[in-house]
Amino acid sequence: MKLFNETIAKIEKIDFSLGADTQKRLDFLTKPQGSLGRLEELAKQIVEITRVKNPSLPHKVIFVMAGDHGVTQEGISAFPQEVTPQMVYNFLQGGAGINVLAKHVGARVVVADLGVAVDLKPHPQLLSRKINYGTKNMAKGPAMTREEAVRSVENGITIFEEEFKRGISIAATGEMGIGNTTPSSAIVSLITGQSPEAVTGRGTGIDDGAWERKVAVIKKAIEINKPNAKDGIDVLMKVGGYEIGGLAGVILAAASRRLPIVVDGFISSAAALIAYTIEPKVKDYMIAGHASVEQGHKVVCAYLGLKPILNLDLRLGEGTGAALAIGVIEAGVKILNEMATFESAQVSQKES
Amino acid sequence: MKLFNETIAKIEKIDFSLGADTQKRLDFLTKPQGSLGRLEELAKQIVEITRVKNPSLPHKVIFVMAGDHGVTQEGISAFPQEVTPQMVYNFLQGGAGINVLAKHVGARVVVADLGVAVDLKPHPQLLSRKINYGTKNMAKGPAMTREEAVRSVENGITIFEEEFKRGISIAATGEMGIGNTTPSSAIVSLITGQSPEAVTGRGTGIDDGAWERKVAVIKKAIEINKPNAKDGIDVLMKVGGYEIGGLAGVILAAASRRLPIVVDGFISSAAALIAYTIEPKVKDYMIAGHASVEQGHKVVCAYLGLKPILNLDLRLGEGTGAALAIGVIEAGVKILNEMATFESAQVSQKES
Repeated sequence: MKLFNETIAKIEKIDFSLGADTQKRLDFLTKPQGSLGRLEELAKQIVEITRVKNPSLPHKVIFVMAGDHGVTQEGISAFPQEVTPQMVYNFLQGGAGINVLAKHVGARVVVADLGVAVDLKPHPQLLSRKINYGTKNMAKGPAMTREEAVRSVENGITIFEEEFKRGISIAATGEMGIGNTTPSSAIVSLITGQSPEAVTGRGTGIDDGAWERKVAVIKKAIEINKPNAKDGIDVLMKVGGYEIGGLAGVILAAASRRLPIVVDGFISSAAALIAYTIEPKVKDYMIAGHASVEQGHKVVCAYLGLKPILNLDLRLGEGTGAALAIGVIEAGVKILNEMATFESAQVSQKES
Repeated sequence: MKLFNETIAKIEKIDFSLGADTQKRLDFLTKPQGSLGRLEELAKQIVEITRVKNPSLPHKVIFVMAGDHGVTQEGISAFPQEVTPQMVYNFLQGGAGINVLAKHVGARVVVADLGVAVDLKPHPQLLSRKINYGTKNMAKGPAMTREEAVRSVENGITIFEEEFKRGISIAATGEMGIGNTTPSSAIVSLITGQSPEAVTGRGTGIDDGAWERKVAVIKKAIEINKPNAKDGIDVLMKVGGYEIGGLAGVILAAASRRLPIVVDGFISSAAALIAYTIEPKVKDYMIAGHASVEQGHKVVCAYLGLKPILNLDLRLGEGTGAALAIGVIEAGVKILNEMATFESAQVSQKES
């Protein structure tokens, strides 16, 4: 609990006062004012977050956390649970979507086991931070103990801090866990106050019958566990997952280090809600990488006031949308740093 | 006219039959089917266009064409005409938005003068393909002669072909020309059949009075010149511009070489309409890079059935949105080429 409390205590409000100065500098660049739209907004946000006048993003890190879910016993996923460890090996071998996209934007991928249901073969790139062998079935009781929930967040913080020693200028979240859209929908329903139906999607591709089952399971989990929506740890403990807790820890740690954190899709956004419930100030450090196909993702973005950068109909997770978004965010920062001014390029300004 | 006719004759339909095979290969990769959304669609489109099973995009080229417009006499732009040559020099010095973003995605920038109103200082990177010193004022008569219109398209083809010798795997359009949203709105209104009001925006930032003047000028130009909307060259000649003709040539040339062409924002989309009117088969070679803030751009995308990749509230032109889109398209192609299959990674498939 000490690391948890210390990290939260370090999170400050981002410095909105730097935005106006940054906009002024953007307006001196050789383009009509505001004509680079979101690129300019992103450049400003990175300055406000980092308090660095001309930030650059050489160290991009995507944290991919894996965990299993006891609720898969209820038949809510299209894929069998054995896919979680198989995909972790795939991440380590570099063959997954996130590996390809991270490489494309020049990002490192950090892979961590927070709660995969089986023992994983050791690998030099695998961080073993397992809390337990998968969560318990939340349709029958709490997914984990309160102590485990805190530990999953702290493990996320520790993983971030270890990687921070190697350099991080921008971080992103990603995850793998068969069944994890189900706890995510439960978290999102609880914290945003929307109905389970409104925030439950098709996951990796279930049919109508399985979708109805999934909604029923979420309702049952909420009914049985009665989580306190104002207490992020209580929500995480009762209807969450270890990888979700780990990502909440990454988000809190990034904010405590004044670093931007790109939130990937739906499951990552559930982790963002947990982090936000624990410490609302983290919100302004978050950037929504993309608009997921999962219907609950829109609800989270509206709730947190996040405006997704990309809309490419992605629903893979792993951090794939966040990886692509990092490319756009870096473009915004480069605009601020590398474009010529009207004066330096001897270009005439707008006629007034 | 010979090069013009030969280029058009070489344009074939893209090979849609390759799409199904490509989707099958995408479905073998370690991800839920279709979960990479537009990245998968883009990978398929590149295969259909290039007829290459595993295309890669090492040679990215953005063609930025400059030209001036006699219609600026009517006071329809926020910036003075001298900005066109000043920005050309900025492109050559590497200080403009397009330079920063092209570098970010690893693209070359080809800068060509198709019709700037003044003589430009020679520069090793500047292609001087000037047709004339700016167009005539279209509010008083045709912007150019028919011969000039054909020549502007042919100059675009020649510029593309010269660059093709250095290698092109994907091309994009960009432009610079103070006042050029006005001819673009005229072209879009004529070819799509929408009213000038519906397709006229604020350009680089004009106020209400200037906007009304701009709409009136467009109406007058159409009334006086009576362009034949079915004849792309007639439209280009009467209400177009030299850089717009040049970009239409680039688009036709890319299609004739079976190469994807990323269309930037509003002015580029007007060039795309000219190319489409000349040869409708070019449409499937086009990829809309982004959704521009200019209201007429939506109209063109709907008319041509193009779905913009990005929506970042850009309205700069120069090829900036297309440059960023190239990064996303390349990501799609890499997914197809670099991801592991379920079999190679020993990952279990969906339960059925």
